[in-house]
Amino acid sequence: MARNSTVKADANAPAITAQLAEFVTTHPTRGWPDEVEHQAHRTFANWVGCAIGPSGEDAVEAALTAVHELQPAQQASILGRAEKVDIASAALLNGISSHTWDFDDTHLKTIIHPAGPVAPAALALAEHLGLSGRELIDALVVGVEVSCRVGNAIYPDHYDRGWHITGTTGMLGSAAACARLLGLDAARTQMALGLAASQPIGLREQFGTMTKPFHPGGAARVGLMSALMAKHGFTASPRALEAPRGLLQVFSDKTDWLEITEGLGRTWEIALNTYKPFACGIVIHPAIDGCVQLRDQHGVKAADVAKLQLRVHSLVLELTGKKTPATGLESKFSVYHSSAVGLLYGEAGEHEYTDEVVNRPEVVALRSKVEAVVDDRIDEAAAELLLTTVDGREIRVHVEHAVGSLARPMSDEQLRAKFTGQSEPVLGAAKAALAWELAIAIAQQERLHDFIAAAT
Amino acid sequence: MARNSTVKADANAPAITAQLAEFVTTHPTRGWPDEVEHQAHRTFANWVGCAIGPSGEDAVEAALTAVHELQPAQQASILGRAEKVDIASAALLNGISSHTWDFDDTHLKTIIHPAGPVAPAALALAEHLGLSGRELIDALVVGVEVSCRVGNAIYPDHYDRGWHITGTTGMLGSAAACARLLGLDAARTQMALGLAASQPIGLREQFGTMTKPFHPGGAARVGLMSALMAKHGFTASPRALEAPRGLLQVFSDKTDWLEITEGLGRTWEIALNTYKPFACGIVIHPAIDGCVQLRDQHGVKAADVAKLQLRVHSLVLELTGKKTPATGLESKFSVYHSSAVGLLYGEAGEHEYTDEVVNRPEVVALRSKVEAVVDDRIDEAAAELLLTTVDGREIRVHVEHAVGSLARPMSDEQLRAKFTGQSEPVLGAAKAALAWELAIAIAQQERLHDFIAAAT
Repeated sequence: MARNSTVKADANAPAITAQLAEFVTTHPTRGWPDEVEHQAHRTFANWVGCAIGPSGEDAVEAALTAVHELQPAQQASILGRAEKVDIASAALLNGISSHTWDFDDTHLKTIIHPAGPVAPAALALAEHLGLSGRELIDALVVGVEVSCRVGNAIYPDHYDRGWHITGTTGMLGSAAACARLLGLDAARTQMALGLAASQPIGLREQFGTMTKPFHPGGAARVGLMSALMAKHGFTASPRALEAPRGLLQVFSDKTDWLEITEGLGRTWEIALNTYKPFACGIVIHPAIDGCVQLRDQHGVKAADVAKLQLRVHSLVLELTGKKTPATGLESKFSVYHSSAVGLLYGEAGEHEYTDEVVNRPEVVALRSKVEAVVDDRIDEAAAELLLTTVDGREIRVHVEHAVGSLARPMSDEQLRAKFTGQSEPVLGAAKAALAWELAIAIAQQERLHDFIAAAT
Repeated sequence: MARNSTVKADANAPAITAQLAEFVTTHPTRGWPDEVEHQAHRTFANWVGCAIGPSGEDAVEAALTAVHELQPAQQASILGRAEKVDIASAALLNGISSHTWDFDDTHLKTIIHPAGPVAPAALALAEHLGLSGRELIDALVVGVEVSCRVGNAIYPDHYDRGWHITGTTGMLGSAAACARLLGLDAARTQMALGLAASQPIGLREQFGTMTKPFHPGGAARVGLMSALMAKHGFTASPRALEAPRGLLQVFSDKTDWLEITEGLGRTWEIALNTYKPFACGIVIHPAIDGCVQLRDQHGVKAADVAKLQLRVHSLVLELTGKKTPATGLESKFSVYHSSAVGLLYGEAGEHEYTDEVVNRPEVVALRSKVEAVVDDRIDEAAAELLLTTVDGREIRVHVEHAVGSLARPMSDEQLRAKFTGQSEPVLGAAKAALAWELAIAIAQQERLHDFIAAAT
């Protein structure tokens, strides 16, 4: 059994667990510029719509039925539904729901979906404890700051290795948000972060299954429970994030500590959040955008298409290379399907990712004409399209920044339309409109009752 | 953002997720030799004692108080206590308790503590569903088989990297055991294993804090919930363990698939389980054994000691190198403290790892005379002791196999004494004796009521 157990490690990392805990507990309420505050509200409202829309999907039903086997107390709401469950399960279920259509938000620098693990935990706790919308937004901002800064420190190595970074950093953001809402001191917040550090959630291998949306939900639950346990004196390593055998060095070769410490409390990761116009993995968005342009600006119809060649970064095919998806869920990970529906229908919302659409003859036919070529000189966030028509014409479209990117952000009006599209079928028009009004200004709500009533 | 995202990966791994699921669901009840059956009972009974003993410790109290914030249903018992909680929380709490004194069992090939993540999940489910002791033991055997075989495939690389392998494989064993108890078919069991694969728990950095015992408890909870969710149709990757972006390739460079597939259902990892005679990390046991020998066989007293030199493998100091522990918990990770109490008292049970003993002057004085020298020619499971007395004599002790090892196993009578030492202070003599009798023959119990009544 004797062996050399030496693994390279950096023993001189800064005390980031302590620094993050200090930041989470001491940063003043609304201690950021107006544009950050606005983006935080966009993040929250977009997340709410993304949780309401799929609240009747199989993934949510299966998870809820399992949770019901625990006979949970009725402490907190499930968005878009009538049931209440205990706060930890509400965090889990709302987190699952919000990522089920892969339609939520993206921190482009890390491909983290920031709200998914943080918002549901904060909302469940705030609802149960009767906290204010102001406290909820404060918790969301600091929580997202923690998970995205940790993500910045380890991306891309950590992600390339196969971890689903949303869930493997999200439990820290959730723990931070919940520690803030519980009013923990810095020492206990440090323990909450430490306990959460032992529970990263998520593998990229799960993409295309219900376990992908489980990742933010599971991370939300982990963070909430870590904060509750720390509140009652549970201990963890005070250097759980940065120590040689701590989380970051264990699961990433890249550990750029400055990404965590520099500008902490002065610059804001949530200000960099973006919102998906298409209900699928972010790396396909440039291709879909290009297809919508082919349709709307070049007048291309399906019958015109002889071949559509996509030139994309290798990551696009690694993540979304399913050539012949069989189900709606699988089709979210198919750049071929996504391009076909973009060109056919000019949209790639949740309705274009159903089992029915995936197997619709015109979609299958067009999909078979799409081919993808890997070219790593092209940015992950870009795409080049070359369409050849049946009469031999060639049309080229270059998408440098897709709609929804930082360079071409969704407007508030577009976000509201997205929210409406997701929540009206569930809540009806009146409640959906009210839910949006309250969500996009949630910090003005002294209590969350009215919002919860509208959103369930 | 463009980059080369290629990570080496083995796309041709065998279908181990499917094979393990098939094994878990189809292997016949009691389908193993008598000695395996006996070892399974020793594993269960030892685990029960280890859970009862620390059931009043701060780690358990803190976790239970946090769980109570969820207002859990009273579905399953906490060993050594009167409270009942929901089954998922019972799995968590009994798992935490059983590892709190670091006194449980060890699969020496991997340093996995096999029962901790598997037994509490299986017990909670079996109690709640009114299942038999036979079903419980069957679930324990197949669950331990799954986690230890996965451990064999990745040890030591995975552990060296900094993961606490008990919790990072234990959720798979727990999921397997619970899937078996729930009677899931192979397809759903495969999904349970897949969902659990996204939730490995545990970093070695946490050693010396309450989060270390959290690891098996958290893994127990994860496995139970994964099985419940799979029961209700939740999906995961069918190749979640072996795919290029699946768990094993993501968190270990070593992936020896044959360790999982060869002899599955014919050889039994639980047969290799060992039980700790000392309440601390297994790698210190040879040093303690040597110190007890110095005391009992060579008549050495503390006053005789000028210097005690330990020659040990580097892993011993990496894991247990705390020179001046301040608390009982820290002292479990101090080969210096452990050697001192072994020589002073001839024992290193839970009573030798209290805050009081750690700061007792005679212990502090003797501890300061212990020095450790790294020598990687020495096996991790061995130790060489060189004691120099104040009058200049030298006494050498070489421990090749410590008491409690496979070569020198604890007898049933020693296990019973250990159980009694842990459970009598909690349950009283009569209940403790009954709890042992029922636990060591649990497969004969048609229902678990009597055992639960005796052990709580």
